[in-house]
Amino acid sequence: MRMPQADALSTPHGLGPHGLGPHGLGNDDDHFHEECGVIGVWNGKDAAALTALGLHALQHRGQEASGIVALSEKGEFHSHRGLGLVGDIFGDAKVMAGLPGTAACGHNRYATTGETALRNVQPLYADFEFGGLAVAHNGNLTNALQLRRAMVRRGCLFQSSTDSEVFVHLIAISLYSNVVDRLIDALKQVQGAYSLVALHNGALIGARDPLGVRPLVLGKLHEGWVLASETCALDIVGAEFVRDIEPGEIVVINDEGIRSLSPMQPAPSRFCIFEYIYFARPDSVVEGTPVYETRKRIGAELARESHVAADVVVPVPDSGVPAAMGYAIEAGVPFELGIIRNHYVGRTFIEPTDQIRHLGVKLKHSANRAMLEGKRVILVDDSIVRGTTSKKIVEMVRNAGAAEVHMRISSPPTTHSCFYGIDTPERAQLLAAQHDLAAMAKLIGVDSLAFISLDGLYRALGRPGRDAASPAYCDACFTGDYAIPLTDWSNAPESKAKAAIPA
Amino acid sequence: MRMPQADALSTPHGLGPHGLGPHGLGNDDDHFHEECGVIGVWNGKDAAALTALGLHALQHRGQEASGIVALSEKGEFHSHRGLGLVGDIFGDAKVMAGLPGTAACGHNRYATTGETALRNVQPLYADFEFGGLAVAHNGNLTNALQLRRAMVRRGCLFQSSTDSEVFVHLIAISLYSNVVDRLIDALKQVQGAYSLVALHNGALIGARDPLGVRPLVLGKLHEGWVLASETCALDIVGAEFVRDIEPGEIVVINDEGIRSLSPMQPAPSRFCIFEYIYFARPDSVVEGTPVYETRKRIGAELARESHVAADVVVPVPDSGVPAAMGYAIEAGVPFELGIIRNHYVGRTFIEPTDQIRHLGVKLKHSANRAMLEGKRVILVDDSIVRGTTSKKIVEMVRNAGAAEVHMRISSPPTTHSCFYGIDTPERAQLLAAQHDLAAMAKLIGVDSLAFISLDGLYRALGRPGRDAASPAYCDACFTGDYAIPLTDWSNAPESKAKAAIPA
Amino acid sequence: MRMPQADALSTPHGLGPHGLGPHGLGNDDDHFHEECGVIGVWNGKDAAALTALGLHALQHRGQEASGIVALSEKGEFHSHRGLGLVGDIFGDAKVMAGLPGTAACGHNRYATTGETALRNVQPLYADFEFGGLAVAHNGNLTNALQLRRAMVRRGCLFQSSTDSEVFVHLIAISLYSNVVDRLIDALKQVQGAYSLVALHNGALIGARDPLGVRPLVLGKLHEGWVLASETCALDIVGAEFVRDIEPGEIVVINDEGIRSLSPMQPAPSRFCIFEYIYFARPDSVVEGTPVYETRKRIGAELARESHVAADVVVPVPDSGVPAAMGYAIEAGVPFELGIIRNHYVGRTFIEPTDQIRHLGVKLKHSANRAMLEGKRVILVDDSIVRGTTSKKIVEMVRNAGAAEVHMRISSPPTTHSCFYGIDTPERAQLLAAQHDLAAMAKLIGVDSLAFISLDGLYRALGRPGRDAASPAYCDACFTGDYAIPLTDWSNAPESKAKAAIPA
Amino acid sequence: MRMPQADALSTPHGLGPHGLGPHGLGNDDDHFHEECGVIGVWNGKDAAALTALGLHALQHRGQEASGIVALSEKGEFHSHRGLGLVGDIFGDAKVMAGLPGTAACGHNRYATTGETALRNVQPLYADFEFGGLAVAHNGNLTNALQLRRAMVRRGCLFQSSTDSEVFVHLIAISLYSNVVDRLIDALKQVQGAYSLVALHNGALIGARDPLGVRPLVLGKLHEGWVLASETCALDIVGAEFVRDIEPGEIVVINDEGIRSLSPMQPAPSRFCIFEYIYFARPDSVVEGTPVYETRKRIGAELARESHVAADVVVPVPDSGVPAAMGYAIEAGVPFELGIIRNHYVGRTFIEPTDQIRHLGVKLKHSANRAMLEGKRVILVDDSIVRGTTSKKIVEMVRNAGAAEVHMRISSPPTTHSCFYGIDTPERAQLLAAQHDLAAMAKLIGVDSLAFISLDGLYRALGRPGRDAASPAYCDACFTGDYAIPLTDWSNAPESKAKAAIPA
Repeated sequence: MRMPQADALSTPHGLGPHGLGPHGLGNDDDHFHEECGVIGVWNGKDAAALTALGLHALQHRGQEASGIVALSEKGEFHSHRGLGLVGDIFGDAKVMAGLPGTAACGHNRYATTGETALRNVQPLYADFEFGGLAVAHNGNLTNALQLRRAMVRRGCLFQSSTDSEVFVHLIAISLYSNVVDRLIDALKQVQGAYSLVALHNGALIGARDPLGVRPLVLGKLHEGWVLASETCALDIVGAEFVRDIEPGEIVVINDEGIRSLSPMQPAPSRFCIFEYIYFARPDSVVEGTPVYETRKRIGAELARESHVAADVVVPVPDSGVPAAMGYAIEAGVPFELGIIRNHYVGRTFIEPTDQIRHLGVKLKHSANRAMLEGKRVILVDDSIVRGTTSKKIVEMVRNAGAAEVHMRISSPPTTHSCFYGIDTPERAQLLAAQHDLAAMAKLIGVDSLAFISLDGLYRALGRPGRDAASPAYCDACFTGDYAIPLTDWSNAPESKAKAAIPA
Repeated sequence: MRMPQADALSTPHGLGPHGLGPHGLGNDDDHFHEECGVIGVWNGKDAAALTALGLHALQHRGQEASGIVALSEKGEFHSHRGLGLVGDIFGDAKVMAGLPGTAACGHNRYATTGETALRNVQPLYADFEFGGLAVAHNGNLTNALQLRRAMVRRGCLFQSSTDSEVFVHLIAISLYSNVVDRLIDALKQVQGAYSLVALHNGALIGARDPLGVRPLVLGKLHEGWVLASETCALDIVGAEFVRDIEPGEIVVINDEGIRSLSPMQPAPSRFCIFEYIYFARPDSVVEGTPVYETRKRIGAELARESHVAADVVVPVPDSGVPAAMGYAIEAGVPFELGIIRNHYVGRTFIEPTDQIRHLGVKLKHSANRAMLEGKRVILVDDSIVRGTTSKKIVEMVRNAGAAEVHMRISSPPTTHSCFYGIDTPERAQLLAAQHDLAAMAKLIGVDSLAFISLDGLYRALGRPGRDAASPAYCDACFTGDYAIPLTDWSNAPESKAKAAIPA
Repeated sequence: MRMPQADALSTPHGLGPHGLGPHGLGNDDDHFHEECGVIGVWNGKDAAALTALGLHALQHRGQEASGIVALSEKGEFHSHRGLGLVGDIFGDAKVMAGLPGTAACGHNRYATTGETALRNVQPLYADFEFGGLAVAHNGNLTNALQLRRAMVRRGCLFQSSTDSEVFVHLIAISLYSNVVDRLIDALKQVQGAYSLVALHNGALIGARDPLGVRPLVLGKLHEGWVLASETCALDIVGAEFVRDIEPGEIVVINDEGIRSLSPMQPAPSRFCIFEYIYFARPDSVVEGTPVYETRKRIGAELARESHVAADVVVPVPDSGVPAAMGYAIEAGVPFELGIIRNHYVGRTFIEPTDQIRHLGVKLKHSANRAMLEGKRVILVDDSIVRGTTSKKIVEMVRNAGAAEVHMRISSPPTTHSCFYGIDTPERAQLLAAQHDLAAMAKLIGVDSLAFISLDGLYRALGRPGRDAASPAYCDACFTGDYAIPLTDWSNAPESKAKAAIPA
Repeated sequence: MRMPQADALSTPHGLGPHGLGPHGLGNDDDHFHEECGVIGVWNGKDAAALTALGLHALQHRGQEASGIVALSEKGEFHSHRGLGLVGDIFGDAKVMAGLPGTAACGHNRYATTGETALRNVQPLYADFEFGGLAVAHNGNLTNALQLRRAMVRRGCLFQSSTDSEVFVHLIAISLYSNVVDRLIDALKQVQGAYSLVALHNGALIGARDPLGVRPLVLGKLHEGWVLASETCALDIVGAEFVRDIEPGEIVVINDEGIRSLSPMQPAPSRFCIFEYIYFARPDSVVEGTPVYETRKRIGAELARESHVAADVVVPVPDSGVPAAMGYAIEAGVPFELGIIRNHYVGRTFIEPTDQIRHLGVKLKHSANRAMLEGKRVILVDDSIVRGTTSKKIVEMVRNAGAAEVHMRISSPPTTHSCFYGIDTPERAQLLAAQHDLAAMAKLIGVDSLAFISLDGLYRALGRPGRDAASPAYCDACFTGDYAIPLTDWSNAPESKAKAAIPA
């Protein structure tokens, strides 16, 4: 959703207002973060309310900001955008009353430093010669900067600092007369990962990049249709899951029904494997597989690969819970909630006193001392990014009296950054990119540390193992095998920052 | 914390400003709600920051508002109060810088209709002849209205609509010269439940009512001391648990150490049994017992009493989880997260559209369809108050394809209101006060429904059963056995509202 | 309205919230400032709306904050208070809808450092044994601190830092049963200046101190009555002026009509002479005399006393305009608007950059160069307090090319502070208390400077001159002749600050 | 500054956020309103602070919103925009610290219905191939819609609903390589009134349309330069007036000095005559003439044309004051402040109760009864637009007891709308477009009514009268003689609204 660099847009963005400052939900929990969730509704009563519900269900894919564009029955577009949680932005009946109609699309956005301007909140909307068009994008374009520079040279004025705006201008300057043809014209020029939902007066359009890196599903809602990032958004609005949108597919939904186009060169699918590990909600069904069960299977595989004698298996809540359950059952060790998560953290622990900062992770987690004292503890978590949180968790568990602490991770070591729509640190900040297993164990302070193997992960997903010649998933964060060219980052994808220097 | 009635204070409260309107976190999850958490720190570096951390750990005892009064080394009091979560109120370094000193006390408050005025946010503070005094109160006085009327007649001007202000005026008009003597004078005149933390320039004082209905614990912090509602607040600041304050005990903490006074008539303890079931945090140790383990034991007892053949045990998250785990192990049925809780509900789903309102509980919970479809499901929850949420949860589970739904509740039926500091509905709204088991099962829509028995609950707490002649706990909400007189409610405690009509 | 000292109330005021910080309208224009305006309405349709209008007309008497307490037909009190201008606080129809009834009273407050807390905003309101009572006070009590200390000792809890709260507690603890008797009991104990409007369920009450220092007028409104600080508040609501309330008089207005009481010792009136010079609005009629005409007469007298050859008479807008007109006509010199006032100054020039601060007074005034260049200019202003503004105005006029600048002031030199309800600096900051005429002229940078004489001022008011044995007005700010004892300031009224040290 | 119609931009504007709702300062005082003030500073220390001061001095030209774009010494642009008064937007030192550099430009904006979006607040800024450019525009383009449609067809995406954005896109798509050449290319394509200040990294540029309808002056500031709408903005920053920018002139200011270009076809000047009557500040010098003196001369001419026997001449404050002074002297009748203006009206009398609405104009003005009672009064005002305010003023004066009321207006009847940058109602709402003199007098309720004649107005400006063949000023609002084509309004300029239907 972002470009590596914004040299063509110096500080005072064009015609719009300034940003509102960081929201503060930040990257403090040491995870990779999905950057967006998208949804579109066609022919649904109170489409904007359905869209708001869907965005609420997709809130885990982006907590910084949300927007909805609705198409009224008179053919007029109305929109509302805001910073914060979906419930706060769309909880006001007056706001919803301002978004009439039976078609709408929406977008959730994840916070990334310095970008929290309202002008960057999607869906993007523009008035074209052919009428209005709203676009909501999950993913990241890898040649957005190159395209932007070319278009600025031509006289295009960019308003946001998002890569997604490239779509809008490509559509605006396309010589095709038809909206769908213009969109195809645009898609053929971009590189990167994208699951798009677009809305114009005449159709709801869904599109997925040729490798299908990011998810997009189709649901049936009475007489209407829903497109969404995950099935949990279908469930909340009472829509029935129909199928995944195919990699490279464009669907055009209108009152005549659904038309499927495949204008792109066919390519073997490379769905993001991390959706299974952490991004997707446990009650979603992703590419035909329930996520919760998959995570339990990953946990079981992890136990088979690396179990060690222990008294108790303790998940790092909430994301580590299903894998820990699978692990505990496979290993035959009691599963206990040895760490309690505090859900009342509030929005603005952004200026803590030194005293509070020093006490660190304890604001979100507390040790359930009675379950830990004197025990040999296996901690199960889904991933280690920088390792900062893991270190504090381990310290907390030890302070509560654990006799031994063994960490088991339900993903392989994350050694590479993602450029396809996931917020990841620079490689230099990735613990596994800098240290071997023993060093990591020592840094985190555990008695033993193990990650699931790459083949083990593929096995848990029902594959025989990873086929290096043609991997079934995008696993670049574990392997550095980038399936889509990183055009804007010149030659060196080691650093997102380095790439930010214009060519 | 509230009085039944506020006849002596008509709408425009005295000298302070108006309230700010309800915060909206309300009673929407159909639980009884603890009304307050309190904490005090003596001789701790950055006492206000420690107090803020403790309040954060006690956030589950009150999410509406918080306040801290700090005593600087110059002997000056500074305070800050706000509506919202602790992190939002005290997350600003400037706010904390305005609360210097090594002694402080704090208070969390739970939202109750029409009372969300800043003037009601504790700690209360007043300037007396002997200097300033801050008071934080967890509990509820049952003769506050009677006392208030008498004092108004005498010329006392009340500023808040809380029962707690009675303490302040009783202290102000006491003829004793010493602060502690004045406090004892006040305590002897009040009836009800109270765990108090008070701070003046010279001592931190803790007090618990003669029956010890509400909790209060003492911790050691390096050279200093901490008083708090629960041990989880000691853990977060790194204090070591010392002991529970005794029922009827007053502790006076100053630089010479701790002095314990017992000026009240001794009486057998009647600690609130609901603290074990729901109020206390699972990682707290209450009256010597870890709460998490107790809840698992209650679940096991529940399984022994009322198990039914099933494929899966599913907790209603989050509060039903430990009991469900205990139940599943005891019953030998797989424990699965068949319901997922959405933690991003936001603050202001207060004006939902009809569409959203209609979809009701789904905002907080979603069904994990893969774990429910075609299964015989045992749902475990901690209590049923009005039954509204249970009904929606059951409907959701059935919609996800469950073959059978059996509800098991880890508390006895709640048939009576609480007058001792817990926010409960009128009896007329309590499902169990109006219906028998079969009718309740039908209303909620389950195939079977069972509550733990009163004796079973006492057994899970390590007692042989309930001794009706001298019950070990306050269990009035299950039995109507009110151990403290309900003076302000005349003869009829059936309705809190009815009592609100002045005598 | 304030006490010299607030030793009995250390920082965290009692049960109410903290203040909201200075409003920023401050004392930047180098005038004495009236501290309050009051109004009460009895038996008027939409009494709160009338009260809001009256407060708007009295806005010049206090711009910091305003409040209204209304008495509904059911006998319930409702109130609303806010910081800012009347229009901003009461411009919202929802606010006004919350203030039903046919009786109300209101108060405007002037900003003084560190006091801008909502809890200090009047009308004060309290619930007494006999019911609610609202009190709005213009003036200042000179023994408030003494009384406060005595009452704190007795167990009274003070909530605000205003002297006016003394009234409320004196009423609360009075042994009389009747409201009016209690009020009289209270008035007999206080010293100082007060024009009071009080409202209880049964009557609207007005009271003026025995010397009648501050104004209070009575108006007839259809079937009802209005009490207000000035006649301009009667005009705006369409009420007809009836008469001034007499010094020492108490009027009790109810549906039977008006009852006048004179419980105080009679004393010769000493109305504040500065109301004529600056405080009162030019379209008000004060003690029978139209203010605008009086100011023109003062200007004429000033011309007679100290005219000098010049080309143009220029007022310092807006307050100097009428005197300048009177001067110009008497002196036969053209009157020109040589200084333009900018009315768009906004609220928050409170954090100016150095650059803006440096440019100082220019934000409010600009020179009309065409009227000043090469001219001999007589500047007419109403008073000089610190002299800071005068200096900048003169510099601006000289920079615009004036050949000569002569300053004429329509009041005598202000050599003493006011303790009777006017915001004045310490004596040490009063230019005329520190310097003789020649030194002042030099400091301000004028070619000549003259003030009207004290006798001249009395003559302009229709008196033969000042009778030192029994002056007709309170003129303490010119003479140091304090007619009411300054009890709280011990022996030395030279400094308000020094008096702040408790006896 | 606005287009007649925004058909190419339906409700949800493009990539930016929504507007913030009307500010409420509106058109309530029944005047035509200048829509903008502009200023630019080159080579001035703290240029943004100087710009803020200049905007403050120009506040009368637009009170809705303001913006500043500053160019730092590193060549980076920073901007800040806000709704409200200049002091409120730029009074914060932190805001100013974020606008470093020695060059800046700024803009004030007047509120017009439904347009109060931050995205419409100027200066507009965009990043072009050649770098950033900020543009501040006073005036209105009359072919903006035509140009906008053509550019949308070409693929340009518009972000605001202002006509001024046309400049930005014309510059972006120009094929010239040089900024100034691109600007000239743009200016040659637009029709309408414009005084522009533009800033890029290399120069400050000023431009005035070929007829010079709106003002723009040049000042010298130490080593630097200032461009501004009026001389009062030069005065406040201490700059010396150099000259007016010529009609059709472009000035390019950089460190080498000033370069003047005249690329446009020469045409006889048609400066806006209403600037003399009402828009310009009285202390400004416009086209070589001091405004204050001109207004007095207009008043004198008005007296010569239409005097009637009277006791007193009373201005409608504040704008009617100079003309009334001129009238009174010429007529030999005393000038008195018979109407007092209340300057504390506040911002948000936007939701008055019916009671307050009914009392109408009285919030801003009050009658000085002592000056009106029993008198024959001549009221002098600058213009009558809808007549609503005049009617209320007259009623107020009569209620105060005036024996006769004669209204004299220092402009001719305003019979036509302005399309050149002034906010005027539709013709149908202009009193003088619908009624003859007698009918107007009756509607307003005066004993007599007179306007200055068109020739009289020209005479007061030092002309022999109006030369119909080649009028010296733009006087279209009095004559309907529109000197610039109204392209976007098709054939019928009678209604701005009618023109809003796209051709």
